[in-house]
Amino acid sequence: MSRNVQYLLAERPVGAVEPKHFRRVEVDVAPPAPGELLARNHWLSLDPYMRGRMAAGKSYAKAVEPGDVMVGGTVSEVIASNHPRFRVGDWVVGSLGWQTHATSTGEGLTRIDPTRIPPQAYLGVAGMPGATAWIGLLEHCAPRAGETVVVSAASGAVGGVVGQLAKMQGCRAVGIAGGPEKCRFVVDTLGFDACVDYKAGNLYGDLKAACPDGIDAYFENVGGVTMDTVFRLLNAFSRVALCGLISDYNAVEPYGVTMMRSLLVNRVKLQGFIVSDRMDLYVKAVGELVSHVAAGRLKYRETIAEGLDAAPEAFIGLLAGRNFGKQLVRIA
Amino acid sequence: MSRNVQYLLAERPVGAVEPKHFRRVEVDVAPPAPGELLARNHWLSLDPYMRGRMAAGKSYAKAVEPGDVMVGGTVSEVIASNHPRFRVGDWVVGSLGWQTHATSTGEGLTRIDPTRIPPQAYLGVAGMPGATAWIGLLEHCAPRAGETVVVSAASGAVGGVVGQLAKMQGCRAVGIAGGPEKCRFVVDTLGFDACVDYKAGNLYGDLKAACPDGIDAYFENVGGVTMDTVFRLLNAFSRVALCGLISDYNAVEPYGVTMMRSLLVNRVKLQGFIVSDRMDLYVKAVGELVSHVAAGRLKYRETIAEGLDAAPEAFIGLLAGRNFGKQLVRIA
Repeated sequence: MSRNVQYLLAERPVGAVEPKHFRRVEVDVAPPAPGELLARNHWLSLDPYMRGRMAAGKSYAKAVEPGDVMVGGTVSEVIASNHPRFRVGDWVVGSLGWQTHATSTGEGLTRIDPTRIPPQAYLGVAGMPGATAWIGLLEHCAPRAGETVVVSAASGAVGGVVGQLAKMQGCRAVGIAGGPEKCRFVVDTLGFDACVDYKAGNLYGDLKAACPDGIDAYFENVGGVTMDTVFRLLNAFSRVALCGLISDYNAVEPYGVTMMRSLLVNRVKLQGFIVSDRMDLYVKAVGELVSHVAAGRLKYRETIAEGLDAAPEAFIGLLAGRNFGKQLVRIA
Repeated sequence: MSRNVQYLLAERPVGAVEPKHFRRVEVDVAPPAPGELLARNHWLSLDPYMRGRMAAGKSYAKAVEPGDVMVGGTVSEVIASNHPRFRVGDWVVGSLGWQTHATSTGEGLTRIDPTRIPPQAYLGVAGMPGATAWIGLLEHCAPRAGETVVVSAASGAVGGVVGQLAKMQGCRAVGIAGGPEKCRFVVDTLGFDACVDYKAGNLYGDLKAACPDGIDAYFENVGGVTMDTVFRLLNAFSRVALCGLISDYNAVEPYGVTMMRSLLVNRVKLQGFIVSDRMDLYVKAVGELVSHVAAGRLKYRETIAEGLDAAPEAFIGLLAGRNFGKQLVRIA
């Protein structure tokens, strides 16, 4: 009988996540009960939201309890099935967590075609991050042609899609990313009009130069001083889609945002959102994104950690911005 | 020939406003040119937005330049007219500034009936502050019956109307105000369900007790630590109408808001707004408010400074929260 390797939440982090917050265990792979399937996980997605699930505080979803398998999106192959709708050999995307195998009732699993686009793209550009970009940009920022759209973490799984969709809307797309290599990728490969390197030490001036007509829409993944700086450049009646605050997640004390006055003076609409609130749009979004990827219209980049045992370090690196594009773990 | 007493902006304040930032001058009253009217100002409104106009920075309206008459809403009587639509004896509400007399082309002046409700109410509960409350609450917060609505500066000209309109919507109305006297007025006279005294030193705990089901809508006049504290108690899908940040206006360094994460986690919509963006709703709002006042359904309180020479100190007091209800200056 094969073994299921799992990573559990060992203890809740305060401040920075460290390897000690995870615990590796091995258990026997359980055969699927009647009505269940057994899946072999091929790809695990690592995403900033997981930091929130590790904490006990109120968040938008149930926290992971110490001793639980860490949550995470997965692309998997069905290897045994007592389920009426899933057959051996089916590929599925879902949320089966940080483990090599999982049994499932099929709830939350969606069958995918692994031949149309690379299957792991269903965890990134054509999955939850892509749909997050689509909903935040098109539903909450609602940019019009000619407007300037700024997105932070622009080389990331969400940000990269935001800017490319903004370009498809006829907007000026400006990214914020860390370091010249990421910024070059954002402009040269993803096709943004400009990308500002926040690590260069002149974020306000560089962003102002990159946005000569100000900022009409801002898709926020980062928070902190980046958000505060962008707030200074918002135009009247601009929109902010608040998607993530990754700079705060590992901080013991969150950053204090001083530019709330800009939201008042410029009559800004700021909308906090998470993708799962808009399942009414999710299927439409993913359908469009898959088409864009299949047609080569939507570019993306992946950082792949090899093997489930690499997941904790890869996740710690993600929170520190050390990944480049979508952070994945290849499990099998 | 009578004299026109005016208060000009003498210099732009940095930090707290002081009497030296104003200069009193007297000039001859000019007769109205063809097409103009001459008005005697009876009432001047003092409002927090004036602090923004005294600053050079970008705001939602043109700054007052040093040497200009201070801007301000007025209720006036027409005492001479070469204007086809205004006759001697007409009462008008408009924005004729910190002065005893003004000539006008009639632009921005609206004729009022000074017998239906007290004329100065057109500067408060049935004027710009009342319409601000109406638009921010009904348009941006859009509370449903049974929800909890919180408003800061609850005994003020805007806040008092917010809570009373919230009650008319079937909501639980909770105010935040400074001191037991204001809080008693908010509950006993205005009919809010509860009012929390932020000066009592336990804002979070007291507000939590006053909002046992959390906060669904927040009408913000104050900003700073009050806003940050309210953010901690927002419910999922709550709405924040950002109307004012008076606690920041006199500060050299604005407060740093740490609870942005609550806006994300709870998928909050925050909307900065000013009343003049929604002139499509203004006439409807004022019409309803006049009816409410005439019928005795809408209570309010005024602090009246006697004579135009009392305006600077009264304005300084307003920024420090020393007024109680609508701050007016009786000019004549």
